[in-house]
Amino acid sequence: MHSPTSPLEASSTHAPETRMARPLRIAIFGFGTVGSSVARILVESKPQGLELTHVFNRRVARKRVDWVPAGVVWSEDADEVIASGVDVIVELAGGFDPAGAWVRNALQAGKSVVTANKKLIAYHGVALERLAADRGGHLKYGAAVAGGIPVIPGLEQGLAGDRIERIEGILNGTCNFILSKMDEGAEYATVLALAQKRGYAEADPTEDVGGFDARAKLAILMRLALRVEVDPDEIAPRPITTITPVDFSYARDLGCTIRQVSRAERVEGRIAATVGPMLVSLRSPLAWSQGTENMVIASGHYGGDVVFSGHGAGGHPTAVAVVSDLLALAHGSRRVDIPSAPARVGAEFEVPHYIRFLVVDRPGIVAAITTALANEQINIRAIVQKPGYPSHALPFVVTVEPCKTSALQRALTPVRALDCMLVEPLDLQMLE
Amino acid sequence: MHSPTSPLEASSTHAPETRMARPLRIAIFGFGTVGSSVARILVESKPQGLELTHVFNRRVARKRVDWVPAGVVWSEDADEVIASGVDVIVELAGGFDPAGAWVRNALQAGKSVVTANKKLIAYHGVALERLAADRGGHLKYGAAVAGGIPVIPGLEQGLAGDRIERIEGILNGTCNFILSKMDEGAEYATVLALAQKRGYAEADPTEDVGGFDARAKLAILMRLALRVEVDPDEIAPRPITTITPVDFSYARDLGCTIRQVSRAERVEGRIAATVGPMLVSLRSPLAWSQGTENMVIASGHYGGDVVFSGHGAGGHPTAVAVVSDLLALAHGSRRVDIPSAPARVGAEFEVPHYIRFLVVDRPGIVAAITTALANEQINIRAIVQKPGYPSHALPFVVTVEPCKTSALQRALTPVRALDCMLVEPLDLQMLE
Repeated sequence: MHSPTSPLEASSTHAPETRMARPLRIAIFGFGTVGSSVARILVESKPQGLELTHVFNRRVARKRVDWVPAGVVWSEDADEVIASGVDVIVELAGGFDPAGAWVRNALQAGKSVVTANKKLIAYHGVALERLAADRGGHLKYGAAVAGGIPVIPGLEQGLAGDRIERIEGILNGTCNFILSKMDEGAEYATVLALAQKRGYAEADPTEDVGGFDARAKLAILMRLALRVEVDPDEIAPRPITTITPVDFSYARDLGCTIRQVSRAERVEGRIAATVGPMLVSLRSPLAWSQGTENMVIASGHYGGDVVFSGHGAGGHPTAVAVVSDLLALAHGSRRVDIPSAPARVGAEFEVPHYIRFLVVDRPGIVAAITTALANEQINIRAIVQKPGYPSHALPFVVTVEPCKTSALQRALTPVRALDCMLVEPLDLQMLE
Repeated sequence: MHSPTSPLEASSTHAPETRMARPLRIAIFGFGTVGSSVARILVESKPQGLELTHVFNRRVARKRVDWVPAGVVWSEDADEVIASGVDVIVELAGGFDPAGAWVRNALQAGKSVVTANKKLIAYHGVALERLAADRGGHLKYGAAVAGGIPVIPGLEQGLAGDRIERIEGILNGTCNFILSKMDEGAEYATVLALAQKRGYAEADPTEDVGGFDARAKLAILMRLALRVEVDPDEIAPRPITTITPVDFSYARDLGCTIRQVSRAERVEGRIAATVGPMLVSLRSPLAWSQGTENMVIASGHYGGDVVFSGHGAGGHPTAVAVVSDLLALAHGSRRVDIPSAPARVGAEFEVPHYIRFLVVDRPGIVAAITTALANEQINIRAIVQKPGYPSHALPFVVTVEPCKTSALQRALTPVRALDCMLVEPLDLQMLE
């Protein structure tokens, strides 16, 4: 009864013997926080089938640690390590250059690569996967998005049978730390300084607070969830730096808090994506993430919403994702080949909005705003003006029923031009 | 540079050609809610590499639907289907008999099996996996725990690199529905009747409310997370039927709600597991699950807590897990072979407890209880007695600092014997 033509046959008979014959030889490229955590897990847990053989770093001497087995080669010559007998390069240097060249050279040489490099994968992942397939290697990047949270295996394996229609996430721990501290009453500048002191934020925080880090991660998730290959630069990020304590106060009155959310969806065949601060209902899972935690919500046509949350960054959680990818390679577990196609990204959503104005008070402002909204057929949900603010710098909020992003922008154009506006009106998507 | 001895070689060269040569031929065994959802996804989404060829059901004629392709064979002869050219049996009948025989026969014949059968996997999974490996097939059961939530791929793939030390979950949607409705003020009997009407609960609800369903799922998760093979019968479940509205009232005063929680942990090399109602802090993710939702929290030595949540049951979510398993088979993605070993299960935890008494009031009760606790070195955290209850049926609550389960049981033995006790004292773990 054992059919010799079964398509499962080849894998099941070849797999265990050939693959586990000797351990995978692993070279870590970049011995920083994550690199040393990966080495630590390999040395402490001794996962079956994995052997650390090389560590590459610039000026590697200063990186040496005594708890790594004596046989491990410490090198500052990337080409030499790639040309050696290693099977897998673990690339943890990040960025395009020189990490991109190492990854390409390794794949070209038929090696496999495990990386946490979100930028490289977001911009060049499709081409690199093709190169890997051509040369007989594998490319795995489970650590590139939401570090310790297995969202990439979840999408590749557990949700492969669904048709994901929307993906939303809290993908940048720095922004979540800053916004959750601001929610407790702190000022942006104070929290940013604290985040920098704790090592959560860079000296130049633009990548994080500007939304660039999150959009690279979103582009990677869009490939796996929505099955589209997009240019991350087509996703316009909005910074969290425009959020002020008054917005948290108004948000709370509306039963919400504020988070940096990355979201993408397919509606009527079109792809829309955006990254930026948004109002999220306190009853939404997006409000659960505290501090530097990450979260991803995948909404499937068949399975509904699935939530993944946990520690998105840090040496150990990210290292877990790397070691899990290494184990998958050692055990011959390939990702389900999710078909994807290039797509353009729009920014047209249809959701309720929160719009906060800061004005020098004078008669007629509300009339001007409501007229502008009415001209675009946008329904007002609420107008809220809390007492206690001076009339020369008066914040107030208008919330509107679900409307197209483009319609709201058209409505706000004449409003922005009003001379009573002290700052640009702040419009945020409201997620319920 | 392309080393011909790479352990990754065999998989990468054989895989795509051999495996995808023709689609996997799939037989669905059991055309109920989940079975027809699986067929629906296969027919509508046409996932690459999967072809529905057979449907088996008793008295199959009444099951026929017109949206299934004409070429599909409808059969009531299980042996004949297994002996046909199918590659994978999707077993959705559930229970030990006759489903167990079908699964064994299929694996024996070198076929692969995808199943949602938690009981079969919890009690016989290890033996069945061995049989599959011996005969060249594969056994996948991503749908057996928490249906649409990819916790099994998450543990097998994304968290394989960690050392999971504790697993906690809301694994039974029926209990979660009942308890979250009771939290809103409803009585147990009323909610049970509603759950039965909506199809969430069986006419005999014992499997669900008694904790038997959840403990089977917990045993499966323990294998993957804690890497132990346990006899599910060693996990003593506690029913949710002892919970009364007064407990929700006291729980709320303590900043908690009540959920049926399944939890297991490894402490100092010993395995402890339990299933039953527990107090969970409103700030804990366990309190987030509403209605029939499921949730799993895996706590890793390296990566910390990872939360998975979503729809644990229902035709479509469960079918997504089945189809994802089928895709993994079609793409040759094998699970990371997590080593596991047989282990005994204890019930010794060290957590705070909530103990609710219902007494005929008389002097000396609190003295007797506090003395009994003191004799076991158990520290009292709070004694709470809310006003408004009659003295002939007076509920009050004692909460205690973390203590061993066994010590608390010893302390409660003389207390249970007090003639003022109207019912057994209810002691619940408190999770913070």
